[in-house]
Amino acid sequence: MENLTEKVAELGKRRGFFFQSSEAYGGVAGFQTFGPEGAELKRNIENSWRNTFSRSLGHREIEAPTIMHKPVFEASGHLDGFDDMIIECPECGTSSRADHLVEDNTDIDEAEAFSTEQIEGLIKEHDLVCPHCDNSLTNVDVDDFNLMFETNIGPGSETKGYLRPETAQGIFVEFPRLKQYARNKLPFGITQIGKAYRNEISPRKGLVRVREFTQAELEHFIDPEEDSPSLSRVEDVELVLYPVDNQGEGENSYVETSVRKAVEEGIVNKWVAYYLGIAKQWYVDIGVDMTRFRFRQHQPDERAHYASDCWDAEAQVDGAWIEIAGFAYRGCYDLTKHGKHSGNKRDFSVFKEYDEPETVEETTIDIDMSILGPEFGSNASKVAEKVKRKVELGPEIADEGAIFVHLDGEEYAVDSEAVEVKEEIVKKSGEEIVPHVVEPSFGVDRTVYTVLAHSYREDAINSEERTLLSLSSSVAPTEVAVFPLMDKEELSNRAREISERLRDYGFSVKYDDTGNIGKRYRRQDEVGTPICITVDYETFEEDPETVTVRERDSTEQERVRVEEIEEAVLSRL
Amino acid sequence: MENLTEKVAELGKRRGFFFQSSEAYGGVAGFQTFGPEGAELKRNIENSWRNTFSRSLGHREIEAPTIMHKPVFEASGHLDGFDDMIIECPECGTSSRADHLVEDNTDIDEAEAFSTEQIEGLIKEHDLVCPHCDNSLTNVDVDDFNLMFETNIGPGSETKGYLRPETAQGIFVEFPRLKQYARNKLPFGITQIGKAYRNEISPRKGLVRVREFTQAELEHFIDPEEDSPSLSRVEDVELVLYPVDNQGEGENSYVETSVRKAVEEGIVNKWVAYYLGIAKQWYVDIGVDMTRFRFRQHQPDERAHYASDCWDAEAQVDGAWIEIAGFAYRGCYDLTKHGKHSGNKRDFSVFKEYDEPETVEETTIDIDMSILGPEFGSNASKVAEKVKRKVELGPEIADEGAIFVHLDGEEYAVDSEAVEVKEEIVKKSGEEIVPHVVEPSFGVDRTVYTVLAHSYREDAINSEERTLLSLSSSVAPTEVAVFPLMDKEELSNRAREISERLRDYGFSVKYDDTGNIGKRYRRQDEVGTPICITVDYETFEEDPETVTVRERDSTEQERVRVEEIEEAVLSRL
Repeated sequence: MENLTEKVAELGKRRGFFFQSSEAYGGVAGFQTFGPEGAELKRNIENSWRNTFSRSLGHREIEAPTIMHKPVFEASGHLDGFDDMIIECPECGTSSRADHLVEDNTDIDEAEAFSTEQIEGLIKEHDLVCPHCDNSLTNVDVDDFNLMFETNIGPGSETKGYLRPETAQGIFVEFPRLKQYARNKLPFGITQIGKAYRNEISPRKGLVRVREFTQAELEHFIDPEEDSPSLSRVEDVELVLYPVDNQGEGENSYVETSVRKAVEEGIVNKWVAYYLGIAKQWYVDIGVDMTRFRFRQHQPDERAHYASDCWDAEAQVDGAWIEIAGFAYRGCYDLTKHGKHSGNKRDFSVFKEYDEPETVEETTIDIDMSILGPEFGSNASKVAEKVKRKVELGPEIADEGAIFVHLDGEEYAVDSEAVEVKEEIVKKSGEEIVPHVVEPSFGVDRTVYTVLAHSYREDAINSEERTLLSLSSSVAPTEVAVFPLMDKEELSNRAREISERLRDYGFSVKYDDTGNIGKRYRRQDEVGTPICITVDYETFEEDPETVTVRERDSTEQERVRVEEIEEAVLSRL
Repeated sequence: MENLTEKVAELGKRRGFFFQSSEAYGGVAGFQTFGPEGAELKRNIENSWRNTFSRSLGHREIEAPTIMHKPVFEASGHLDGFDDMIIECPECGTSSRADHLVEDNTDIDEAEAFSTEQIEGLIKEHDLVCPHCDNSLTNVDVDDFNLMFETNIGPGSETKGYLRPETAQGIFVEFPRLKQYARNKLPFGITQIGKAYRNEISPRKGLVRVREFTQAELEHFIDPEEDSPSLSRVEDVELVLYPVDNQGEGENSYVETSVRKAVEEGIVNKWVAYYLGIAKQWYVDIGVDMTRFRFRQHQPDERAHYASDCWDAEAQVDGAWIEIAGFAYRGCYDLTKHGKHSGNKRDFSVFKEYDEPETVEETTIDIDMSILGPEFGSNASKVAEKVKRKVELGPEIADEGAIFVHLDGEEYAVDSEAVEVKEEIVKKSGEEIVPHVVEPSFGVDRTVYTVLAHSYREDAINSEERTLLSLSSSVAPTEVAVFPLMDKEELSNRAREISERLRDYGFSVKYDDTGNIGKRYRRQDEVGTPICITVDYETFEEDPETVTVRERDSTEQERVRVEEIEEAVLSRL
């Protein structure tokens, strides 16, 4: 189907799935509003994700703020490295993404991994021009542009805050408490569904590249030496894989294999493979078309700095592949960084008990409280703790005259005499380890978009053209619509009764009595309602009473007894 | 109970309900993270709100972005008027909320409505000092501080964006589309549950005054002349009201009456009363203690600029009253403003058909397309539309030589000759009206906090002290916890089977096999789990098998047959 993108956008607007926000004010690129149908579809997809990736796996969900202050993003690396390359036209002032400019105007497919210097070279080599005014961009500098939205917290500008570019950091920074709730035992998983923000240089229309979006992320904290995924759960799930080695050979060189074989043959890391298997099943359930779907491995230079292996779930719409999820083995990168930057290494590790206590040589640090006590009074033990941590990080500072530490904004100088560093033979019952992290990360908006695009159909019923969304009943905004044939009291009373009964049974139900019955069927077809029930005059002619039950995809109609209506709906969903 | 605030905060941290976010980095005041238990409780409260205020009432929910651009907030009045009064100490630089300074140090209870000059006068009169360094603040200026978080959208700083200070504006700006989805018929209601942000000058600890929070808002668009609420639905609901006139007489002068009588006696606007009735029932259901709850009417000078009547739901914690919801009759304020500022009045009104067509004198504007056509080509009809709208707003401009309009950034000059303004007698079938808005608006974080505080209990079981949350089962994070008495295979297999069965039945279930059984009961008591089930050795001695079912509040234990476990749980929730 050509122009599926435009068709979905048009239907999205007309039926209330999604549309450019604040249109009355001209809107701003990159911000979309989910209308009533879209918000319901999105929520159903989120709840389904929650059941699959959080509840069923025994993981727990948290909700951290979307604004965090500067030190968090200094630690995570986002402040320094979360950039896109920007080029500003000196003639008209239009800013463009420099790597996209190269991709759109040369044979190069993936320019994101190049350096700014390389991109400048390519712009010169191909004599590229501004897409807005055609002015030459040769000799114009390519700069790094940080993608985080910045703001000031509180009065004044001292406290910089950033809108999180991924929900993940909200989980990592809270690790010290989260491990307590897990009773300091690995493995455990924490999920979060929430907003994330990226100040894209050139957002696209629709839901694919937006500046505000929803992520559903799972951070699974594991002991890489001890823990293994329950592969048996998904071992036979078939995957369509597009590994790095095959990517040179074009799109027909997919590897189709089971989760078990993908692991055995060393194509995919076992943890990543486990989640690919769970994700594949989930995508099938919510209605992603598996003939337009693949898992693609990242090229080494395309991988984020932290990931040792990374695969994307990709869906095809109008011939283009859209990344809809990423599965990364992040190793110990994040927790190590936060341990270092926060100065609280222990908070970001977990104590792992040995099977048998071991005898090891260890550095111990003794602080003489008879010196600190009189000098620092009630703060002495806190100062001692700070000194201990500082010396742990670099024992050599104990050789200097004094050690300086900060506590509640005050500086304290501690005489080195009070600090003794010793090498001792000790019996250890275990050690602190930094957990590794496996991260399945889903873009919810793009998933919503894929589900809409993949369920979009056009057909003809009695030579009348029809548009429908063949949505999976597990995510459709409405499961059953109930109509009275006409807006007459007898009919509408019974139709309302049936609505109520079905609602009480747990179905999502819509009641509609406006317009002729054909129009009402079309309306429900276009918002993807699997089943329509009509109360008509025949209803009362029969004993027991019957109604017409119509299926969306086939448009087949059947008369069903009102007393059996719940079962009739259930069996058709 | 004294220090309930501290006790709830301590339990919140220890058990994973809520805590200061990014603590490892010192945190920033006003940002809290919901841990696993708190996030679940919050989600249950949100879902319960959704069922009560959206689904059951036939309203629809949308999801608009949290960032919107400047014109939206110019129209809404937030850019100009959404301020708190700030005073900065010239000595230490600490910023304080000037009205709170007055409230905390004088007999004045409500200083928010005063002008900056009045507050400066009061600071002088009472010789107030900086709460941080005791420096005198007499003669220091009190300024307005805008509470919106500001950011830049896209590269450069031309496009200012703001984090929305209320979810409501996201609904109002989308009215042009939302009315289409409602088929241009009043009344209809739109809800939204989402983040909102206020850059508080001095946030408090905990969940009561935070900078990032969740709102659940309903905008009910009505025709004030035709529509009435279904009062019969809630007419007998008893309310504790604290009307303006009684507020001088202290807290014992509440009016306790039914919704019906409150309307009949003119105490509350009928639309507001309707929603107070629904809210009261909801608060009871989620576990707010009605002996620490009231509806308080706003004083005229305390009401927002748009509201003609406004009541707050207030809950008492540690003797202080916390606003947890507001019920405002906003009239046509918002839609009128957006119609004016966007230049698209018609988009923010609804066509109301008369019962009978009426004959009226009307101004009509004719545009001569034989002039515009040749001059503006394919843009002619768009230009004509713009001219028409401009002349509608001020017909006098048609007397000048030319009319200037803008389209896609270009200016077009239209000869006045092409525009004819006529007074005509016409038959009208209806007219455009601006709907009025009734707005129940809930603070979700404060509701979570109230539910926690009001369900907090301490007692002694066999002279052992116990803390528990007596949470309503409609919102408790876990409904049933299932334990094996010991971590032995026989016991834990059966316990896991029972967990699965209960989960399949639809209960939220936790399985726990860590620690002794007493500790496990205490843990579940502290997170508010109503029912615990234990599989012990007796289970297998009986035929059919039985388990111990324990109730949280009474701690009573009973043996129940495994085959009847679903019914046993259901009857106890």
